[in-house]
Amino acid sequence: MDNISKFKQKFDPYLKNYLEQKLNYFTNYTKDTAILDYLNYIKIIILSGGKRIRPYLAFLMYQALGGKEKEKALKLLVFLEIFHSFCLVHDDIMDKASLRHGVKTANAYITGKLKEDKRIGDLLHVGDSQAILFGDLLSSWGQEIVNLNTDFDSQILREIKILSYEMGDEVSVGQMIDVDIVTRKKVSKELIDEKTYLKTAGYSFVKPLLIGAALSGKSTGKINNFCKNFGKALGFAFQIQDDLLDITSSEKKLGKTTSLDKSQNQHTYFTYFPSLEYGKKIISENFKQAKNLIKNLSINENTKEKFLDLVNLIQKRTF
Amino acid sequence: MDNISKFKQKFDPYLKNYLEQKLNYFTNYTKDTAILDYLNYIKIIILSGGKRIRPYLAFLMYQALGGKEKEKALKLLVFLEIFHSFCLVHDDIMDKASLRHGVKTANAYITGKLKEDKRIGDLLHVGDSQAILFGDLLSSWGQEIVNLNTDFDSQILREIKILSYEMGDEVSVGQMIDVDIVTRKKVSKELIDEKTYLKTAGYSFVKPLLIGAALSGKSTGKINNFCKNFGKALGFAFQIQDDLLDITSSEKKLGKTTSLDKSQNQHTYFTYFPSLEYGKKIISENFKQAKNLIKNLSINENTKEKFLDLVNLIQKRTF
Repeated sequence: MDNISKFKQKFDPYLKNYLEQKLNYFTNYTKDTAILDYLNYIKIIILSGGKRIRPYLAFLMYQALGGKEKEKALKLLVFLEIFHSFCLVHDDIMDKASLRHGVKTANAYITGKLKEDKRIGDLLHVGDSQAILFGDLLSSWGQEIVNLNTDFDSQILREIKILSYEMGDEVSVGQMIDVDIVTRKKVSKELIDEKTYLKTAGYSFVKPLLIGAALSGKSTGKINNFCKNFGKALGFAFQIQDDLLDITSSEKKLGKTTSLDKSQNQHTYFTYFPSLEYGKKIISENFKQAKNLIKNLSINENTKEKFLDLVNLIQKRTF
Repeated sequence: MDNISKFKQKFDPYLKNYLEQKLNYFTNYTKDTAILDYLNYIKIIILSGGKRIRPYLAFLMYQALGGKEKEKALKLLVFLEIFHSFCLVHDDIMDKASLRHGVKTANAYITGKLKEDKRIGDLLHVGDSQAILFGDLLSSWGQEIVNLNTDFDSQILREIKILSYEMGDEVSVGQMIDVDIVTRKKVSKELIDEKTYLKTAGYSFVKPLLIGAALSGKSTGKINNFCKNFGKALGFAFQIQDDLLDITSSEKKLGKTTSLDKSQNQHTYFTYFPSLEYGKKIISENFKQAKNLIKNLSINENTKEKFLDLVNLIQKRTF
């Protein structure tokens, strides 16, 4: 089993425990069985899949800098996965997606349930509306986990809060660009890069790494620079590879609706440049840079190895 | 000029200042003129209208309990109005509303702008998608204001955080019920009451009052009970009156799309009970109870007067 899968095994019980506690509490608000059934689906969506790459990156960086409070760190880092689920739930509405990690998206599940129950009205819209509220809840929960935490020093937590608010702003603006450019006939490469940084590199790589570093209480300017440069290289490689897979992979393998980019007028390196070659070159250059940055970093060899393993794992993925 | 309008005059510069600072910062993320134009519309929506009833209630309670840090309190209470705007922006998508406080809703503005610019695709859906992201930003900003605040004692801030997370959960579940019941042919009075508590009484009245009390650092069990009982009575009166006005008032007067309840299969006291009289009776009983609770509260006469004025103002509104 690879390291990230081992991490997921350790991490998911914290995630599951958090969600169960939180959802149990909601029976204080309503006993309505339909509403409680929808709410319970939040747990199904989150636990059905996902690689946990964001908490994993944060945890690796935390350990790389000597962080020893394993359980407390995992408990806190649940917030990254909850935040990510919030983004996915809202993205799925915008993308009109019905499948994610092999299970129905929130909007598709609720619309399906309403149809089953022979409800009246615009059930597609109602499903979307409920999914907006799912996301709103998850956004709030993610913040709550950080902001009510008392396991770490308040100065450390303050740094993490600042990073997480920046992360929230960045990912929303990135998604605004993403949503807007599908209505444009042409966009600049600069705007594609801006989107890729905000929506993927900053959000999924740089910020989790910086959060892990901050959590250790032992970050330095040098370490923060590594987080930014390594995260950016790996993030660009990951996103452009994802765009490539959107073209080359099949729906079945990926467990989500695919080949949407072109049909939805999405702009990527592969719609911008005439051939696949330029994008492929950028992917491989960024993977190479990411690996070099790890090699030159002064952290213990064991963690270095794990960072390299992760880069290789991402580079080799075919779906 | 009535007291709440005077409050708005004092409060809005803090709100405006916050929004300008925040939005200015976003030019660091993108220089794209379309995206910046959308973002700037957040300011227009928020400053174009609204009575500021939530921060006003919190501020009154803060002052009733001897709170003296006027400027610091107003600066913090901006979060309640930002949070409220987040709810409205998402509600407007769910309600397919195009007008609010006399200006276009976020979704309508962006869809209109896209049409003007002759963009391609499902522009109604894109407008909705961007409005989802507007709301997401506002939700995050509201929390950021509280969670990065250093003007108040950390124990006071912790209480406010706990209250605000409860508020977030309550209003989302309330809205989930609201959205779900339009697809049902019949609902119980209990569910209408649950919705009214969660979506209006708890969120717009009880929680702001409790937050103001907590902010003073001098709350007691007795005071918290007043916040809960008075907030609940005033909240039920307000919401049922709102449902009544949906039937009796005109779109022009209200500055928002009206008479939607019936056409959208919404369930209220007025769709549940055969005549208007029962709902009217409940409204007047709740206003009466709210006034009695104020009269029996031991706070200074000046603040008592202001609470009574507010109840009278709400009771007399015709739009």
